[in-house]
Amino acid sequence: MSVRAGIIVTGTEVLTARTVDRNGPWLSERLQELGIDVTQLVVVGDRPEEVLSALRWLAAEGADLICTSGGLGPTEDDLTAQVVADFQERPMALDQALEERIWRILEPLMARWPHLEEDAIRQANRKQALVPEGATVLEPVGTAPGLVVPPPASRPGGPTVVVLPGPPRELQAMWRAATETEAFAAAVTGAVRYRSSMLRMFGIPESEIASTLRGARDSGVAVDELEITTCMRRGEIEVVTRSEPGEDAVHDAWLGFVKDRHADTLFSDDFSLIDQIVTDMLDQRGWTIATAESCTAGLLAARLTEHPGSSTRVRGGVVVYDNAAKSALASVDPALIAAHGAVSVEVAEALADGARAALAADVGVGITGIAGPGGGSAEKPVGTVCVTVSGPEGRLTRRVQLPGDRSEVRDRSTTLALHMVRRLLLGEHN
Amino acid sequence: MSVRAGIIVTGTEVLTARTVDRNGPWLSERLQELGIDVTQLVVVGDRPEEVLSALRWLAAEGADLICTSGGLGPTEDDLTAQVVADFQERPMALDQALEERIWRILEPLMARWPHLEEDAIRQANRKQALVPEGATVLEPVGTAPGLVVPPPASRPGGPTVVVLPGPPRELQAMWRAATETEAFAAAVTGAVRYRSSMLRMFGIPESEIASTLRGARDSGVAVDELEITTCMRRGEIEVVTRSEPGEDAVHDAWLGFVKDRHADTLFSDDFSLIDQIVTDMLDQRGWTIATAESCTAGLLAARLTEHPGSSTRVRGGVVVYDNAAKSALASVDPALIAAHGAVSVEVAEALADGARAALAADVGVGITGIAGPGGGSAEKPVGTVCVTVSGPEGRLTRRVQLPGDRSEVRDRSTTLALHMVRRLLLGEHN
Repeated sequence: MSVRAGIIVTGTEVLTARTVDRNGPWLSERLQELGIDVTQLVVVGDRPEEVLSALRWLAAEGADLICTSGGLGPTEDDLTAQVVADFQERPMALDQALEERIWRILEPLMARWPHLEEDAIRQANRKQALVPEGATVLEPVGTAPGLVVPPPASRPGGPTVVVLPGPPRELQAMWRAATETEAFAAAVTGAVRYRSSMLRMFGIPESEIASTLRGARDSGVAVDELEITTCMRRGEIEVVTRSEPGEDAVHDAWLGFVKDRHADTLFSDDFSLIDQIVTDMLDQRGWTIATAESCTAGLLAARLTEHPGSSTRVRGGVVVYDNAAKSALASVDPALIAAHGAVSVEVAEALADGARAALAADVGVGITGIAGPGGGSAEKPVGTVCVTVSGPEGRLTRRVQLPGDRSEVRDRSTTLALHMVRRLLLGEHN
Repeated sequence: MSVRAGIIVTGTEVLTARTVDRNGPWLSERLQELGIDVTQLVVVGDRPEEVLSALRWLAAEGADLICTSGGLGPTEDDLTAQVVADFQERPMALDQALEERIWRILEPLMARWPHLEEDAIRQANRKQALVPEGATVLEPVGTAPGLVVPPPASRPGGPTVVVLPGPPRELQAMWRAATETEAFAAAVTGAVRYRSSMLRMFGIPESEIASTLRGARDSGVAVDELEITTCMRRGEIEVVTRSEPGEDAVHDAWLGFVKDRHADTLFSDDFSLIDQIVTDMLDQRGWTIATAESCTAGLLAARLTEHPGSSTRVRGGVVVYDNAAKSALASVDPALIAAHGAVSVEVAEALADGARAALAADVGVGITGIAGPGGGSAEKPVGTVCVTVSGPEGRLTRRVQLPGDRSEVRDRSTTLALHMVRRLLLGEHN
């Protein structure tokens, strides 16, 4: 039996696209880890009737669990707790002990903003301490408590609703406590632990996988018993396969088929990302890395330092947006730029070598390209990017034509560079 | 009368959080520009019954228009066109001219990937050329055509459905043609052109706006006639006000009240972003800028070059992740680091001065901080960031304590730095 969950993100700022929704995807990942199927993600405004309608729709769709985020703040339009109480037919009551605990959180904050009015704060405090009868309170991380609200007696099979605050940090910190409540456990009893696998490839079009799927079927692999989805992310192809217990043989046969057919472009079969793969390979050799970036202007350096602990392997880099900077910071010979242009394999090589030398690193990466929308020519259209990775044993250089707008070209250039570092570390040179 | 629209994003990869949804927010912004209220955004998987259920729910919620994205590809699980045809009670028929036009797009692609099977491609091609009776075809940008499908005769007031492809570039390129169809125009007739305004502030907590709202009400400003929403984005507070025609006086009174009360922290009242404001101010003076980044490791340089044309003002920067790099590339005296630590106002100042000098720029920015999760101490906890902006007339330095995780600390540091550049350009110095 599969356990189904829906997610409701409330907030006009998300619906009107002024804020990127970070909670929906995060909750989806956490629910899947628990073997729960996420079937719908709904974003609605702050109006109570819209939140209520979404709750009803997800319940009608057979949700066993609904997670909401947002609408728990102190302001007048924060009404999610009340709406969920109505939906679950549970009257609200003041939890005085909770009111006191919230007040102890607010007091030091008030000292920081001395001109706030205590009365107004007290009133907001009380609103946040109203709890639907029979609900479990999740202790506040910010000032808003979360709630786990079981279905009413009149609808015993109906969904349990987990009510979480909007700020991602608060929501995330509260999640574990939510999953440990009795009401949550009761709602998700019987969740099937599917087997999931992920294969990642770089350097082939997405349509190739459709053809591989047909090939596998023709070879007698019962792929129709599996749930296979593919998507293109940051220039990489991801193939996700999910199977129910007992389908391991066909699951393995399919993975083997893909691995054989795409051995040259497959770089990950265990959910690992290229960022982590490159990091691990560098650490294994004890090598350091440095960057010289033109069109990506720091994005690769930022990506290499996204995760903690990167200071042991990332020396630093130079952002050489104009030509004088290329010469001053990465020792690129101005004559080379004059002869071949700033976007050329020759300059990419000089940048990579320059980064290695300037920062005394084992690996240097040079990126130069035309991110657009302007600056393209017939010979070097927008999307032309030259990348060199340079190491103690040689260099690897590529000139490619990347699709997409300015931001996609910049982002894909960093992905290409990481894949080239991997290939260099595997021993590939020009 | 307000015109209501819902958005349905299909795709297991979005629902399972492997891909970030770029289409929902983009469509929301475009619809709002046309005076259309976006009331729901729904993400569902690739199963036809789930897409159909979402269409029915949005129709029941009173949508005049529904936009879908995704599910138009050549693979077997791409079924959106068929589902919408069923929903609008319009049988599908092959459009032979369209089939031919798609084939002419595919032919050159096939030349690029010579090992693909022509038969399979032909079959996929035919599937994409099936069109619901009475629908308007939107010419393919990739290989998938879009559709505008009017409601059936049995439900004349029902929503018109705009069916768009999943790849953001294709969807965006097709949008204008969709809005120019007769069926689209008929569905959105009567959209009220609301007046919207945006005030942006930096350096106050969100709760301040709730208090300002009460203050305005107490002063007799009829704020309840307005739709006011606030949100915190990248450390900035945004206050969006929307009003119907005829409410200009109260709208203006509210804006005036906020501007008076928050004059010191208000930096934008015309939708402009701090990035654009800083860019314009630099260009007005003809000044160039350079960066020396430690904890942000290139994020500020990348942000300064996000938009085209930045090469005239951005000289470049150095990413000085380790201490040796700070000295080698930004001339920071090692004795200064030894005396005050790498995260200190002294080192931030030296970095800013060093960036100015190394890249011969008018403004230098130095950022050093502890992004976490490790590396904090009692004296300098995680989130401690020191920023200096240095110009021809002096320096401005701040040491702050930023909330959030590693990625938020890094992102907010770049926002703080931009605001400090603005203040420096307004003549503020230490």
